[in-house]
Amino acid sequence: MIHLLAEAGDLARGTIEVEGADHRHLFRARRLKVGDRVRLVDGRGAARWSVVDHVTARRAVLRVGGEAPVFEPARRVALFVSAVRPERAAWLVEKATELGLRELRWFVSERTSRSLPERALERQRRVAKSALEQSGGSWLPEIAEPVPLKEAPIGAGAVALHPGAPTPFIAVAGSAEAIVVGPEGGFSEREVEELAGCGVVPAHFGPRVLRTETAAVAALAVALTAMS
Amino acid sequence: MIHLLAEAGDLARGTIEVEGADHRHLFRARRLKVGDRVRLVDGRGAARWSVVDHVTARRAVLRVGGEAPVFEPARRVALFVSAVRPERAAWLVEKATELGLRELRWFVSERTSRSLPERALERQRRVAKSALEQSGGSWLPEIAEPVPLKEAPIGAGAVALHPGAPTPFIAVAGSAEAIVVGPEGGFSEREVEELAGCGVVPAHFGPRVLRTETAAVAALAVALTAMS
Repeated sequence: MIHLLAEAGDLARGTIEVEGADHRHLFRARRLKVGDRVRLVDGRGAARWSVVDHVTARRAVLRVGGEAPVFEPARRVALFVSAVRPERAAWLVEKATELGLRELRWFVSERTSRSLPERALERQRRVAKSALEQSGGSWLPEIAEPVPLKEAPIGAGAVALHPGAPTPFIAVAGSAEAIVVGPEGGFSEREVEELAGCGVVPAHFGPRVLRTETAAVAALAVALTAMS
Repeated sequence: MIHLLAEAGDLARGTIEVEGADHRHLFRARRLKVGDRVRLVDGRGAARWSVVDHVTARRAVLRVGGEAPVFEPARRVALFVSAVRPERAAWLVEKATELGLRELRWFVSERTSRSLPERALERQRRVAKSALEQSGGSWLPEIAEPVPLKEAPIGAGAVALHPGAPTPFIAVAGSAEAIVVGPEGGFSEREVEELAGCGVVPAHFGPRVLRTETAAVAALAVALTAMS
């Protein structure tokens, strides 16, 4: 099955045009032909079937049909993650989007060693589109630019990974609405207290030191599976 | 805490020498000094403390001390994975080693589109060493070169990810001794039957199409967490 991320408004129209990179992907790489079926997703949880109506060298038209199935997790889980190197950040975005991430918000805390430039975020949004189309998801996670930890909209329902916490993550994974992952140096005691003051539950993910993006993808997988 | 993977025999000796890449890492990148403590792991589950005894420009000697704590998962989980592109394979090795993988065995099945050259496996073993030292693990997962699926030593206790399976992975994650992950095209019906004939339990990881390395890391995280 071929999936294509369309503009939110496009699914309400009778036909949509495909040009540029999407045209190259569908009609050169994937070799679709007139009459072939494409599942359109709008990035906001809706999906419709469509059929290739006609194709030229640079442009194609898809005829939009009825509702298509959606494959979203039973619950929404957001990730708040300490900024990491662009290459590792792109991997996190690809894997988390495949798994069904709701949204990703980067932050910079006391021990975060870098931020992420706008071009890295632009690349992450392209990676997220590809990962969504590859996995069959219909919700495109928003990717928010890094903000200071204290400005991140983290509140009750969130779980922060913290090695010193008494609670194992698995015990709270099924109810986590957001997962907060700090830098490899961890959160400072002051940050841990501030997070607790916002109603965030601290939990540990075992005794090993995981890279930030490893902890984020692993915890997301556990949370989405625990609630499925 | 600084971790160093030593030769299995070295932990039984009174002192060990550090040269080459390890020397550069410990004494240039990490700037260790005489008297600093290094946790030595042997890659087979044992760990000892050591102290930097003396350092020269190209060589250092660590004095081996008493037993150090180990941070291994409660149970052993192996991965059998359809060969993927070298870049994705290295990412899988890094993430799975951080999480506590026991061993990784690549295979080639009907729909596997590639194998992995020896130089890719050599790179994966370097990546595994770095990931082990970064995470504090003490067991270095063996990485076995690709073999045809039917020659892979897969048996009872293994769970194969298969979209058509009625059982969700989470239901069997806690008892999985090995996880078998096929190519993105999935296993053929014949392969599914052959795996079932070997006592392998099929289970699905949700309705989305995950890349091979994404499914492997996500399922490993769920399995190791479920049993912890």
